[in-house]
Amino acid sequence: MRPSQRAADELRPVTFERNVARYAEGSCLIKFGSTHVLCTASLEDKPPAWLRGQGRGWVSAEYAMLPRATHTRTKRESTTGKPSGRTQEIQRLIGRSLRAVTNLQGLGERQITIDCDVLQADGGTRTAAITGAWVALHDCLKWMRQRSIIKDLPLRDHVAAISCGVSNGESVLDLDYAEDSAAETDANFVITGSGSLVEVQATAEGAVFTETQLTAMLALARGGITTLVEMQKAAVA
Amino acid sequence: MRPSQRAADELRPVTFERNVARYAEGSCLIKFGSTHVLCTASLEDKPPAWLRGQGRGWVSAEYAMLPRATHTRTKRESTTGKPSGRTQEIQRLIGRSLRAVTNLQGLGERQITIDCDVLQADGGTRTAAITGAWVALHDCLKWMRQRSIIKDLPLRDHVAAISCGVSNGESVLDLDYAEDSAAETDANFVITGSGSLVEVQATAEGAVFTETQLTAMLALARGGITTLVEMQKAAVA
Amino acid sequence: MRPSQRAADELRPVTFERNVARYAEGSCLIKFGSTHVLCTASLEDKPPAWLRGQGRGWVSAEYAMLPRATHTRTKRESTTGKPSGRTQEIQRLIGRSLRAVTNLQGLGERQITIDCDVLQADGGTRTAAITGAWVALHDCLKWMRQRSIIKDLPLRDHVAAISCGVSNGESVLDLDYAEDSAAETDANFVITGSGSLVEVQATAEGAVFTETQLTAMLALARGGITTLVEMQKAAVA
Amino acid sequence: MRPSQRAADELRPVTFERNVARYAEGSCLIKFGSTHVLCTASLEDKPPAWLRGQGRGWVSAEYAMLPRATHTRTKRESTTGKPSGRTQEIQRLIGRSLRAVTNLQGLGERQITIDCDVLQADGGTRTAAITGAWVALHDCLKWMRQRSIIKDLPLRDHVAAISCGVSNGESVLDLDYAEDSAAETDANFVITGSGSLVEVQATAEGAVFTETQLTAMLALARGGITTLVEMQKAAVA
Amino acid sequence: MRPSQRAADELRPVTFERNVARYAEGSCLIKFGSTHVLCTASLEDKPPAWLRGQGRGWVSAEYAMLPRATHTRTKRESTTGKPSGRTQEIQRLIGRSLRAVTNLQGLGERQITIDCDVLQADGGTRTAAITGAWVALHDCLKWMRQRSIIKDLPLRDHVAAISCGVSNGESVLDLDYAEDSAAETDANFVITGSGSLVEVQATAEGAVFTETQLTAMLALARGGITTLVEMQKAAVA
Amino acid sequence: MRPSQRAADELRPVTFERNVARYAEGSCLIKFGSTHVLCTASLEDKPPAWLRGQGRGWVSAEYAMLPRATHTRTKRESTTGKPSGRTQEIQRLIGRSLRAVTNLQGLGERQITIDCDVLQADGGTRTAAITGAWVALHDCLKWMRQRSIIKDLPLRDHVAAISCGVSNGESVLDLDYAEDSAAETDANFVITGSGSLVEVQATAEGAVFTETQLTAMLALARGGITTLVEMQKAAVA
Repeated sequence: MRPSQRAADELRPVTFERNVARYAEGSCLIKFGSTHVLCTASLEDKPPAWLRGQGRGWVSAEYAMLPRATHTRTKRESTTGKPSGRTQEIQRLIGRSLRAVTNLQGLGERQITIDCDVLQADGGTRTAAITGAWVALHDCLKWMRQRSIIKDLPLRDHVAAISCGVSNGESVLDLDYAEDSAAETDANFVITGSGSLVEVQATAEGAVFTETQLTAMLALARGGITTLVEMQKAAVA
Repeated sequence: MRPSQRAADELRPVTFERNVARYAEGSCLIKFGSTHVLCTASLEDKPPAWLRGQGRGWVSAEYAMLPRATHTRTKRESTTGKPSGRTQEIQRLIGRSLRAVTNLQGLGERQITIDCDVLQADGGTRTAAITGAWVALHDCLKWMRQRSIIKDLPLRDHVAAISCGVSNGESVLDLDYAEDSAAETDANFVITGSGSLVEVQATAEGAVFTETQLTAMLALARGGITTLVEMQKAAVA
Repeated sequence: MRPSQRAADELRPVTFERNVARYAEGSCLIKFGSTHVLCTASLEDKPPAWLRGQGRGWVSAEYAMLPRATHTRTKRESTTGKPSGRTQEIQRLIGRSLRAVTNLQGLGERQITIDCDVLQADGGTRTAAITGAWVALHDCLKWMRQRSIIKDLPLRDHVAAISCGVSNGESVLDLDYAEDSAAETDANFVITGSGSLVEVQATAEGAVFTETQLTAMLALARGGITTLVEMQKAAVA
Repeated sequence: MRPSQRAADELRPVTFERNVARYAEGSCLIKFGSTHVLCTASLEDKPPAWLRGQGRGWVSAEYAMLPRATHTRTKRESTTGKPSGRTQEIQRLIGRSLRAVTNLQGLGERQITIDCDVLQADGGTRTAAITGAWVALHDCLKWMRQRSIIKDLPLRDHVAAISCGVSNGESVLDLDYAEDSAAETDANFVITGSGSLVEVQATAEGAVFTETQLTAMLALARGGITTLVEMQKAAVA
Repeated sequence: MRPSQRAADELRPVTFERNVARYAEGSCLIKFGSTHVLCTASLEDKPPAWLRGQGRGWVSAEYAMLPRATHTRTKRESTTGKPSGRTQEIQRLIGRSLRAVTNLQGLGERQITIDCDVLQADGGTRTAAITGAWVALHDCLKWMRQRSIIKDLPLRDHVAAISCGVSNGESVLDLDYAEDSAAETDANFVITGSGSLVEVQATAEGAVFTETQLTAMLALARGGITTLVEMQKAAVA
Repeated sequence: MRPSQRAADELRPVTFERNVARYAEGSCLIKFGSTHVLCTASLEDKPPAWLRGQGRGWVSAEYAMLPRATHTRTKRESTTGKPSGRTQEIQRLIGRSLRAVTNLQGLGERQITIDCDVLQADGGTRTAAITGAWVALHDCLKWMRQRSIIKDLPLRDHVAAISCGVSNGESVLDLDYAEDSAAETDANFVITGSGSLVEVQATAEGAVFTETQLTAMLALARGGITTLVEMQKAAVA
């Protein structure tokens, strides 16, 4: 039995709350159980410097945790002087995932920054962030269409993410912090609404893993992401 | 008439929500209208290095804004490499205000860090932060007493804060962003439950001010803080 | 009796020495007793980037202490990598105080930077800095008028500053380091030549304070600043 | 046909050169075609601070490129002030890969740092680094055994890494820079001598990918890593 | 003729003013013409960490220029985040020069930091700094002897420094800024009271130089330093 | 007898290997015994910002050591956040030395950066770097001439460098690490092919030195540099 009493293929309770940030062009507070991430989309009317004059836009992400999102207080990264390696890995992953389903030509010479701020962390913050960030991005694009800045939503598909792991030898879906700390293998999957793969990251934590386990985790992830994409659809309907 | 249709001595709607952060020893989400600040108190079982062996504890604060708390996105301070001068001024002010009503001997050789993270900013973030931080600190101390870490709450009094300003020549209470941007003078008052002054900061923004105006603002502040302290009492009852 | 044998309303011996820096457009070495601050004004022929094209200029200040200005050596801020919170508070205060009496339109698209370097520190460095900075700014503007860069001095008034405190329950003027360290309350007042208030900052250090004490300190400050402004007038005559 | 005229499952010419750094306890210059990485292992006789007193050691890695390892010069990271996000991702990956096959208890309270410095970069630097780092680590451990610091080599297995990609719709092994820049999908596999998985990272660059493609890339990677592990065995024989 | 109308072997007017810093254990304001450097010596009762337990002390130096010591304002190094390469070169040179005449065993496990702050810069700041720093160091050591911290002055000799240059083909002594900017070759000599060499640094600025010119500059430097050492003796007598 | 069994005026075995970096416009791996420095020249088609529009180019250098170039591992400067004072001194010296023999007008509005990365360090890294850097620079200029970017090589002369020292009272040439650590005096000479002096740096390490010793070291250096320049000529022939 899992610590949270869930079945191996069972997600934690997931909720999406839109329009939570008064000033952002799009926003979504997503909860995967006790993991809470506030995602905001900010539109800027010019692309990053390195992209100027190419007729395309850009979508990037920043990720951070409030100091007391975690069991014990984490030092603020503004005090340590720079985002940690972990923070940078995560924000690069979120950005890549969103760009995989965005038509950057259709966006025009503009930039959208998605800020994913973890208010509370109980495992799976990066996958919740990607899943919520899609909604914030969607709403920002809709905001732009309403103001005739763009004609069509330059979004090719949904994208969502979920973690899997091998825990006590069994493959399980959507690890919380307790399970994640003890898992032998830890994996994150980013998958589109049509089921294509965007990113697969599987890491041996305490023990190496087999191809069979990788395949089992991927199957679990597909199930979870099907549910998440349905919830995204309901949320933005 | 004020932009928000309020009377000169009228606070914005204020709410306190306790226990909003699952892991923190004390927490409070405070709202002054559209200004929302999440305050958490984190206990550490040793004082800062410079205070070791003196039988006393310490209370300090950190303050930050989420990048899209504001009308346009603000760069993350972890990216710029250091907290800005404004951030440092504010977090020093919050720390001083809380220490003014805390019995540091009674706290013992321990440290409490209050994190004040602005989720949404519509003026008066530092005064909301101080007012909410007192509740988070109170709840952290109560948590300690329940676990017999301390015998009595080492809190001498309530402390709360409010801004005032001179706007179109008139002294007004609790400025929102629109009013603050246009005010000739901007002042912040930190006052205890028993009405003693902890901090007075009045600054000429567009025009110098008179002693009469300072006195009028102080009178408004006293009224506002009386209400805020009553609300703190109700919140922690 | 005060440690320095002064009356409660008595300033330390104050001197202004102009033209002490060979290359600066304006300069003043000001001494408040054993507190010595070298103020230089540097003219740059363009405004800061964020002010370009608006037909106005800017006055800002930087503040620093020599490492051995103090009783024990202080680490150089170039070594710690950034100005401390205290340094930033002070230089922002000096800049605001000077801008309150400067006609920025009259200055044109130019920038004046006032460097206030504390050669020796015995309390009250920020108030000495503001008081001396006004002279350096005045002389820089005069230098500009002599070269026909501007027609009239864009200075609306004098500005000076002084500290007050509550020490052993009594309000006193112009604290030196010994008195400042032991004071229950610490306040700084920035006041114009015509007696208008520019900045009031009063802070409970060891004990909270009353409105009566605030009023008493303000009265002392008015007296001190009247003297300082007369000395500024004599200095630039 | 691939730009390098190789078959889809063909590695570039690979060579290992041991003992290339006079002072390091272990070293290996590994070449994957025109990608050259110098790997050195440095032994320190105490573990990192956070691991003290736990009877275990640690293996970590640092990764960097010489400024002109690349087609156009890259700014030195000592000048930009911090390792980039990409650098941090790679050095974290190398460290995890090596720890997956090291018996940290057997190492005792010591630390081995593997420096992977890219002298020339033509794609696949991180996989060459992991593959060469294993040799440097092995030689460092052998050096320790020769001096009776440890009794047995605390190495559970070989570990090697290789990249795969989807290029023009076809899965190919060991991408060089030209191929990597144009690939639709980019993947890195870290696999042990006994064929267990340590890390799988697959990323959609220009187009999403399918599970079939992931499986095909994994099969290619297994073939390449079998060869690399045989070469490691020959190198350290 | 030199721009300053001096003979080729003529120093600028040099003055030493001792005890100019109220709190420092030793201090000297040295002037080489319009170059003014404030040197303070600060005693700390423990050596730097890397020297602990070796029965020896350390003497080091820090060097900085006030922002408006120069013709145009120089950015403060606390703002740029680190001392420049030039600053570091100079402070390392000052430290080495002083240690060459100090008996570090005789100093005991203590550290003296010499701060050389340039109040006004007209060329030759590093040589003025070394020459004045010796006096500050001497006075600090004397202060220690008066308090019986040490028995004998652990100073083996005087040390002073002077610049030379090749200007319009002629070797000249003690360059001011105007001459220094135009010189073909620039050299600094650090020499002890007994005439031994401590440091020779000669640099081709606009044109290479000959051994004959090096020898001529060294002869000029010897003459200048003989004078400077006599003045040091008079100053501390 | 010297530790390395060399005569006082004997260089270590020196080799130059050109074209070692596939992508650089010029490159040279130089070895002075066990000191190995990889020098690459990178051409950029615009001058540094401060030189724009003046019709001249620039040559500068960067210097670094691989972490395990040394007997014990040195922390990477990208981790410490900035190049050390020593690194900055050396790279400034290399740049000045190269510019002394380069016709910057003839280079046009372009910039060449010479990266000197020490792969292995056994003393004399800066002198090896200068000597090898000349070859890399030469080859970069030749590369430019072959592509008709410039007509003539804008190189006025060769430049090479060598260290000397006073060891056990005797002047010796080209110190290795063992000798350097124990030397009383340490000197570096940069000299052109025609025998003119570019830079002389002599430093008392453990004992002061005499003019006779300086002259003896310079004579040794001349001999060594004559050999090095002949080897440069052979290398680029």
